[in-house]
Amino acid sequence: MSIDEVIPVDDDSRLGGAHSVGLVETKVFTFAEPPNEMELECGQKLGPITLAYETYGELAPERDNAVLICHALSGDAHVAGYHTPQDKKPGWWDLYVGPGKAIDTTKYFVICSNIIGGCKGSTGPSSLNPKTGKPYGPDFPVVTISDMVRAQKELIDHLGIRRLLSIKGGSVGGFHVLEWVVRYPDCVASAIPIATTARLSAQGIAFDEVGRQAIMADPNWAEGEYYGKEPPWAGLAIARMIAHITYLSDEQMHVKFGRRLQGRKAFGYDFKTEFEVESYLRYQGDSFVRRFDANSYLYISKAMDYFDLPAKYGSLLQAFQDVKAEFLVISISSDWLFPTYQSKEIVRALKANGVPTTFIELDAPYGHDSFFHPNETLGGALSGFLANVQRRVREGDRGRAATP
Amino acid sequence: MSIDEVIPVDDDSRLGGAHSVGLVETKVFTFAEPPNEMELECGQKLGPITLAYETYGELAPERDNAVLICHALSGDAHVAGYHTPQDKKPGWWDLYVGPGKAIDTTKYFVICSNIIGGCKGSTGPSSLNPKTGKPYGPDFPVVTISDMVRAQKELIDHLGIRRLLSIKGGSVGGFHVLEWVVRYPDCVASAIPIATTARLSAQGIAFDEVGRQAIMADPNWAEGEYYGKEPPWAGLAIARMIAHITYLSDEQMHVKFGRRLQGRKAFGYDFKTEFEVESYLRYQGDSFVRRFDANSYLYISKAMDYFDLPAKYGSLLQAFQDVKAEFLVISISSDWLFPTYQSKEIVRALKANGVPTTFIELDAPYGHDSFFHPNETLGGALSGFLANVQRRVREGDRGRAATP
Repeated sequence: MSIDEVIPVDDDSRLGGAHSVGLVETKVFTFAEPPNEMELECGQKLGPITLAYETYGELAPERDNAVLICHALSGDAHVAGYHTPQDKKPGWWDLYVGPGKAIDTTKYFVICSNIIGGCKGSTGPSSLNPKTGKPYGPDFPVVTISDMVRAQKELIDHLGIRRLLSIKGGSVGGFHVLEWVVRYPDCVASAIPIATTARLSAQGIAFDEVGRQAIMADPNWAEGEYYGKEPPWAGLAIARMIAHITYLSDEQMHVKFGRRLQGRKAFGYDFKTEFEVESYLRYQGDSFVRRFDANSYLYISKAMDYFDLPAKYGSLLQAFQDVKAEFLVISISSDWLFPTYQSKEIVRALKANGVPTTFIELDAPYGHDSFFHPNETLGGALSGFLANVQRRVREGDRGRAATP
Repeated sequence: MSIDEVIPVDDDSRLGGAHSVGLVETKVFTFAEPPNEMELECGQKLGPITLAYETYGELAPERDNAVLICHALSGDAHVAGYHTPQDKKPGWWDLYVGPGKAIDTTKYFVICSNIIGGCKGSTGPSSLNPKTGKPYGPDFPVVTISDMVRAQKELIDHLGIRRLLSIKGGSVGGFHVLEWVVRYPDCVASAIPIATTARLSAQGIAFDEVGRQAIMADPNWAEGEYYGKEPPWAGLAIARMIAHITYLSDEQMHVKFGRRLQGRKAFGYDFKTEFEVESYLRYQGDSFVRRFDANSYLYISKAMDYFDLPAKYGSLLQAFQDVKAEFLVISISSDWLFPTYQSKEIVRALKANGVPTTFIELDAPYGHDSFFHPNETLGGALSGFLANVQRRVREGDRGRAATP
């Protein structure tokens, strides 16, 4: 998943605009202080754990309007608004989150937390290991999607929210969505997995593995002990370039770049950048290394590989048997990383369990990354679905309150 | 394209078997001796040029039964048979080339030559530069598909063949096929491009570029001056792994590996090989570096990127306007590297020029690599098409001979 695409910001979404959440700040929540560390799926313990998170809007007195947004591989807690007046662009899903937007912050209390294993303020391999006073590096335990969700649940408890109105995530964020509804069925009223899967495919593992190999082949990786030295930027850039190809569709690459040359009129017959698509990929790689930690890339991609709800629960049907959330499942027609058939597997297993499920295949040309682009169908579906869920939840709660 | 897949050899194709061409040897042909070097498309000169080639079967007295096979990125001249009785496997397309096989060496004189820029006996970056007495390395000029074909034409002339009965190639080999029929329309009676395209797509360039970046990021690459030292194996292995993913279909990866673990029953929660697909990719990378030169990978992938018949001739329609060969165009249903729509572009442009063209989309699950697998439809189509072409060519030649 890429948040590096530059999407133009309309005037209403600029700082001070009517549709912007405005200036926001990242907060932190720390728990699992020793000796009460969190036991991870791998058997190791981790603590203290800090989660970086942001919230937008106000939590209703009934605490029933919280929407959790789960970010993808390289994302962070900064979904909407600006950290400083100088910020050139807003948070990564500002298009869809703000006053009057699809996820309307005048109606909903929106939360996003950075995942553990990451490098955007939450505890990860670049964090200080309290036992050594140095960054964890390769001593950071392998974390899973399940571990990430359990940490997030601590934050939701800390915020005093018993049940989320909705939880939404695209790509790896969708893994978190599915893990949440399965692990905490009573705590989620609705779920919106976007462009995701219930288990990573062999092809997905293969792309992840080549990216990891590229990082680990970089001598600067130094078995993960590179903090304070030159980081393995070349390897990380290659990993990012590989992944980036999978985020775009063949068709979109043709439209966006075709075979156009970059700043020259004829072939140079050398190994410098020649085609626009090469320039674009190098730019994506170069800008990524400045904002992301190579070890976090290894750990998060590994967590992706392990994700397999059908295997964990015997089948996807069984995985979903206690689910109480209603679903809006969204796939993207041009997504070949998490193709529509993988969303349909989720839909079939939900419906077989009697879970109210709406399925949308968005006809969007941008490949996996389409959900970062403006799309009126996506926006309308999100706002309509959330409004329906909120109405039903409030009617249901009133109904329950009225029951003697 | 991969020739690393281990396809079982049936008894008749073993050394001494009725369908094997038996023991064969690679020959060499050298031309363009200074001062008569070949002028390349990039403007530089190259010479002397050596081509490694193999032939199977006998050239008919009329010299009208020659079939040229063009290999793909990592291929070589060794299409069929065995170099020594100890060889564990035959040449890379032995399944389809031999006595009684689809390309029947009792009927046809089959030729395959290694491309220039390669590392399998033909002049390439690892060859000695006569000006320095050392390997060319980065001083090797950038060669194009067109240069490769012009060199091949020298060989065909040398063999005394005025017109090829047929020319066949898959993947990048298909680029050569198309270049041949366009450049030498009078010298080719029929053409069989398989799983290929008339111009590399932006996505194809992108995958090539990331592979090149992986090689060039390896410190052992040393700006291409690594001969006699430790080669950039880590980088080349990563380039190969990236490419290998594109040779298989998502479906086939699921069937072949799924999410099975390699030699263990539970997750290891570490960064060692865990899934079968990881093990497979690492094996492919490791075995490739032992047989291929990293600089050749750079040069050949660059030649692929430059290939663009529509741009060179104004349009594909114009590119094909003088074509005299009849065509059998073959695409593979599960190929996402050179998808069927790209073959259909070729077919449309041929038909619009009135070129007799048969199109087959093979229903094969293995992705781009499907043409390395046994496929009766493919075999039958090849043998039937060649027999028809030979009959027509001989009738036509007799017709012309009878004309006063």
